[in-house]
Amino acid sequence: MPRYSDLEHSPFSLPAGEFNAITDVSGVKVGHFTLYEGDGVWMPGRGPFRTGVTVILPHDENMYEDKVPAAAHTINGFGKVAGFEQLRELGQLETPIALTGTLNVPRVADALMTLSIEQNPYIGIGFDESGRRGYASVNPVVGETSDGFLSDIQARPIGEDEVRAAIGDASSGVVEEGVVGAGTGTSCFGWKGGIGTASRVLPDKFGGFTVGALVQSNFGRPQELTISGVPIGRHLIPPGNTPIPIPGSIMIIIATDAPLESRQLGRLCRRAAFGLARTGSTCLGGSGDFVIAFSTAYRMKDRPSDILSVLPILVDEQPVIGALSLAVIESVEEAIYNSMLMARTVTGRDGNTRHKLPVKEVRKLIIRFGSES
Amino acid sequence: MPRYSDLEHSPFSLPAGEFNAITDVSGVKVGHFTLYEGDGVWMPGRGPFRTGVTVILPHDENMYEDKVPAAAHTINGFGKVAGFEQLRELGQLETPIALTGTLNVPRVADALMTLSIEQNPYIGIGFDESGRRGYASVNPVVGETSDGFLSDIQARPIGEDEVRAAIGDASSGVVEEGVVGAGTGTSCFGWKGGIGTASRVLPDKFGGFTVGALVQSNFGRPQELTISGVPIGRHLIPPGNTPIPIPGSIMIIIATDAPLESRQLGRLCRRAAFGLARTGSTCLGGSGDFVIAFSTAYRMKDRPSDILSVLPILVDEQPVIGALSLAVIESVEEAIYNSMLMARTVTGRDGNTRHKLPVKEVRKLIIRFGSES
Amino acid sequence: MPRYSDLEHSPFSLPAGEFNAITDVSGVKVGHFTLYEGDGVWMPGRGPFRTGVTVILPHDENMYEDKVPAAAHTINGFGKVAGFEQLRELGQLETPIALTGTLNVPRVADALMTLSIEQNPYIGIGFDESGRRGYASVNPVVGETSDGFLSDIQARPIGEDEVRAAIGDASSGVVEEGVVGAGTGTSCFGWKGGIGTASRVLPDKFGGFTVGALVQSNFGRPQELTISGVPIGRHLIPPGNTPIPIPGSIMIIIATDAPLESRQLGRLCRRAAFGLARTGSTCLGGSGDFVIAFSTAYRMKDRPSDILSVLPILVDEQPVIGALSLAVIESVEEAIYNSMLMARTVTGRDGNTRHKLPVKEVRKLIIRFGSES
Amino acid sequence: MPRYSDLEHSPFSLPAGEFNAITDVSGVKVGHFTLYEGDGVWMPGRGPFRTGVTVILPHDENMYEDKVPAAAHTINGFGKVAGFEQLRELGQLETPIALTGTLNVPRVADALMTLSIEQNPYIGIGFDESGRRGYASVNPVVGETSDGFLSDIQARPIGEDEVRAAIGDASSGVVEEGVVGAGTGTSCFGWKGGIGTASRVLPDKFGGFTVGALVQSNFGRPQELTISGVPIGRHLIPPGNTPIPIPGSIMIIIATDAPLESRQLGRLCRRAAFGLARTGSTCLGGSGDFVIAFSTAYRMKDRPSDILSVLPILVDEQPVIGALSLAVIESVEEAIYNSMLMARTVTGRDGNTRHKLPVKEVRKLIIRFGSES
Repeated sequence: MPRYSDLEHSPFSLPAGEFNAITDVSGVKVGHFTLYEGDGVWMPGRGPFRTGVTVILPHDENMYEDKVPAAAHTINGFGKVAGFEQLRELGQLETPIALTGTLNVPRVADALMTLSIEQNPYIGIGFDESGRRGYASVNPVVGETSDGFLSDIQARPIGEDEVRAAIGDASSGVVEEGVVGAGTGTSCFGWKGGIGTASRVLPDKFGGFTVGALVQSNFGRPQELTISGVPIGRHLIPPGNTPIPIPGSIMIIIATDAPLESRQLGRLCRRAAFGLARTGSTCLGGSGDFVIAFSTAYRMKDRPSDILSVLPILVDEQPVIGALSLAVIESVEEAIYNSMLMARTVTGRDGNTRHKLPVKEVRKLIIRFGSES
Repeated sequence: MPRYSDLEHSPFSLPAGEFNAITDVSGVKVGHFTLYEGDGVWMPGRGPFRTGVTVILPHDENMYEDKVPAAAHTINGFGKVAGFEQLRELGQLETPIALTGTLNVPRVADALMTLSIEQNPYIGIGFDESGRRGYASVNPVVGETSDGFLSDIQARPIGEDEVRAAIGDASSGVVEEGVVGAGTGTSCFGWKGGIGTASRVLPDKFGGFTVGALVQSNFGRPQELTISGVPIGRHLIPPGNTPIPIPGSIMIIIATDAPLESRQLGRLCRRAAFGLARTGSTCLGGSGDFVIAFSTAYRMKDRPSDILSVLPILVDEQPVIGALSLAVIESVEEAIYNSMLMARTVTGRDGNTRHKLPVKEVRKLIIRFGSES
Repeated sequence: MPRYSDLEHSPFSLPAGEFNAITDVSGVKVGHFTLYEGDGVWMPGRGPFRTGVTVILPHDENMYEDKVPAAAHTINGFGKVAGFEQLRELGQLETPIALTGTLNVPRVADALMTLSIEQNPYIGIGFDESGRRGYASVNPVVGETSDGFLSDIQARPIGEDEVRAAIGDASSGVVEEGVVGAGTGTSCFGWKGGIGTASRVLPDKFGGFTVGALVQSNFGRPQELTISGVPIGRHLIPPGNTPIPIPGSIMIIIATDAPLESRQLGRLCRRAAFGLARTGSTCLGGSGDFVIAFSTAYRMKDRPSDILSVLPILVDEQPVIGALSLAVIESVEEAIYNSMLMARTVTGRDGNTRHKLPVKEVRKLIIRFGSES
Repeated sequence: MPRYSDLEHSPFSLPAGEFNAITDVSGVKVGHFTLYEGDGVWMPGRGPFRTGVTVILPHDENMYEDKVPAAAHTINGFGKVAGFEQLRELGQLETPIALTGTLNVPRVADALMTLSIEQNPYIGIGFDESGRRGYASVNPVVGETSDGFLSDIQARPIGEDEVRAAIGDASSGVVEEGVVGAGTGTSCFGWKGGIGTASRVLPDKFGGFTVGALVQSNFGRPQELTISGVPIGRHLIPPGNTPIPIPGSIMIIIATDAPLESRQLGRLCRRAAFGLARTGSTCLGGSGDFVIAFSTAYRMKDRPSDILSVLPILVDEQPVIGALSLAVIESVEEAIYNSMLMARTVTGRDGNTRHKLPVKEVRKLIIRFGSES
């Protein structure tokens, strides 16, 4: 299975990082747990299951002790994400980010709490030894899209064990894409969607920063699919009697090593929609389209010894912010393509099937219509 | 135990409804489940427990089928509420609102999902018989404040059974206040806090609408407590070696029968802080202060047969909106007082104690300093 | 000069209205005043001028007496728009919308005040005859993008006379596009930009509603221009030593006859970025990208005699909202193309020149690479 | 005329700075221009005038070259403030803040543009000598409340000369309060309102930072006035046939030398409502209640030579943010009292009169009912 960059078609302006993945941002790790069990008729609560959980770790130390600056943005809010209010107020992440199927969100959030409490046994209780200041509660951040077309979504089979497995699986370097983790049961433009990732590196004159995106793709009507400007969806339609898809959703995670404050990370979040739009999304009313961005450039201690922190922060000078914007847009666009190209056909609940986007035909259309050919 | 209105001190401008409770808004029900178990040394995961769950039902039919217009507002976002993104996007509630202890939120959200799926077996699956439109996923709305000072917060003992019990307990009329449900383990101004409620009725010339508030109070430093303008906290301090409280929080629920659209309910939400401020709150940095408002005046069908709905909506004429604002402010203020006055002393985890606010002394101070005396 | 629809290339999903213009929304009128004076070296305060003002009237009666529901959205907030706070709070427009050059905003806002006071002589003073309720102040809504590359922007030459002329010019039917009104001095992708408009009509099963967009285009780097997916900017670069453009901006106005409340109009606003992204915008950091949407389906009286208004409101059923979203996206995309195709080459201040996008070459590229050819 | 602190009543927790004024924040200056002309019957456009403009300078150098971090917050958005969108996007101020009467906002914004262009002649034009980056346009920030009860608000008599005079008048140290500048024609709780200011200094253990507030008070119904918890408005009503006041407004400006980023300044902004509520405000529907906060601790260069800026930033540790919150709340509360206590009776348009709050009676009531007496 080729990734988008293997199509020998390069419409992008900025070069990718080594792995063309969110893990090109130094320190970031990604892990998956995939639940692919059962076949045939849906038996509520017992499967079949095509679901999972994907975790993104800004670093692999104690996230609660060493929080990272972050921001969140809602493109269309028809979704059940957890943790956004505190993330916005404090501009920081204190757990890994987990992605899963829609109705799994509470159980995954609960699991992140369990794991954080294990590492930080005073959470929620109150006071450190000096009595000076306590451990507050912990704010798990979880995103979702619905995998109900292929999976027994009502069963909510992802909990503590599964989250623990995903975190145990986390690694830097190559990121598994397609039908894996939180992407196991999702659909994109009527085809099989899933997990995809990509990255961009800025020129040295703009600081040489890296930006990476990871998506859980689950949106779009077949006729809308556009790849690098080529309206694939007008020429290529998924086989079979595809039922009208549930209006879908996308989770977009952005990582960067640029030293940004939360407000600036929010600016990057708001660029993600521009990458999403390039793929043909029309942001349907029932779509839950959310973006979370974080920086690995500095950390925020849970119980700092000083009240001031001396940090290098990027100035909002337009060329660098502009270059970061472009990096976000291109990373998100390519990550979505990768989420489809790296997927495979999946048959799930009640025999419902999402087919793999046929790479050869896509390549042909791109060669025929793509202005880069 | 007297409620605030029993102090024979009436600083308010608007009259209360029959029960001076959120249930004065016709159709609204409130239910509690209280977990008050164990004593002595904290054994992580095993208690002691001073926690619970409180549910507010805009109506007691199928909330998913008959959603109600709603809005949410974050005063300070240091909290773990669930369901705010979709509530904001669609301006509606499709489950009861549940309040609980901070780390219980995911398990309570999960329980609301279970109950909603029971009532609506197609949730998350996709399509009704006609294939015209499916059941989307369900968005549970849960609020919280921390009861970690008195309770084993890490255990997260509130789940499906407890939520089911709270809903089973729901009734109109008198609302149990103080040490009950989600208020079992909370603190307010260093005293015992808990659940409180109050209501106001507008004059006929302003439509005669009713506004009710219900709070889960868990905020404030002892010296800040102010009741009807009298700085109680300068004269009355909780006994014993009160440890520095964890910066607290408050959940505020507003109900009304005024026919408001979501934008207007958002305006009411933003008035709640004015009632909160009257009690002496200084909205500390670690406070999770959230407001949810809903109207019972009309319903929004899950799968409407028409694309238009003909509704009477309040015009933003200033006198009526102003009167509703005042009703919100006074209801919230009095609900907070009730949450303390109706509480009793509670000793919990590790012998930690929150004392009941001494009513006699409060009354004396109000008589001495209150300008209404 | 052809409009986009004259290119005999139809990548869109929804049909346009009669004039393919914002004026296809019944009752909406558009007027321009164009200031095109002087040549040669910039003499601060004295020209040359390539600027103007464009007004969009939701109806041509007294807007202050008969307000319309509206919403505003900021894609990137590097801009000087007027009137957004009150528009958000009350969800309504009470003046025409005016667009102009950046530094003209205050003078145009002042002019809208003057005109509104003329029509409503009690504005800001207080009380009607009955004493029941007064006229509050008036909230002019003005958008802008910078025409400083071609025009003496510091001079701020657009004031009361010019706004009056634009309103006097307002008409339904065909809308003048390109180098006119607020588009006289703007640039788009390094070419001449300006005013553009387009519309879409929904199928009857989705209510048959009309959506129109009008843009003032002033953004983009040459290499980014994309038309219907064809990366024009990689093949066609503006002639001459184009100086690096000031990071640009866009104002997007959406009109519809669908009966939406302010929250729903806000949802439409947030779709506009998807149309913008299709043209190649990467939303640079210095961009002021703003959207205003209004509905003509009902009016909100300034001093209503009743406190309730019985209105048909669209339910947030997904297919209709989805169709409206698509209509917004396609209207915005095509309006931007029209703003460039209908422009002509303009030389302004200091001999600065923005060339007309060469239509023949664009058509050739679309035929060569467009998948619809 | 006594200030609040002269009443020998000290209900506050934190000490004031030297001048108990916003100018206690080092570098901050305040200037006024007062227009107090004409008497008798209103002649639209010709007076009488009871209006003016007040400017707050974060520093007295070139604000455009040396911007300061800032945030804005809307409590209730029924108002016509200028400059909020860009302030939110970039988190910075690049002009002085000006306050004036409602309909004067555009002319004052225009005047701030003129003055900024004088200092920075390339504004809006585009490029510095190196061609590296241009001067973008300038974003004037202006707040307002309505003085239409006493002044000919339709005339909009405050423009360039008046703003220039206010800036010329700006000084550190004692700030003139009451009937001056933007407070010349405003009303508060049916009495004469105006400009008021106060400050607080944090203990050394919380960094020793200073917080100052300045308000333009113009809100409230007579019966609601509360001073330090004493319901003055139930005992003391303005004489004469006070017409129902136009629902009023307040502008609140917060300055601090604490090194906060924009997100944190936003947190301080959101505490201002707690100070406002203490005075009895019920935030009526027609109220335009806005807050702007800035820090003087560091500056943001317009065209920085580096892309990174190394800054000490306050960590969001709760005790310090909590202390800053308290400082904001107390400063705002006392500033509002000062705006009334330092005012004098003013008769304006059509003989309309706002009486001075009688200090003796207020003191008596505070002694009688105040728990501190």
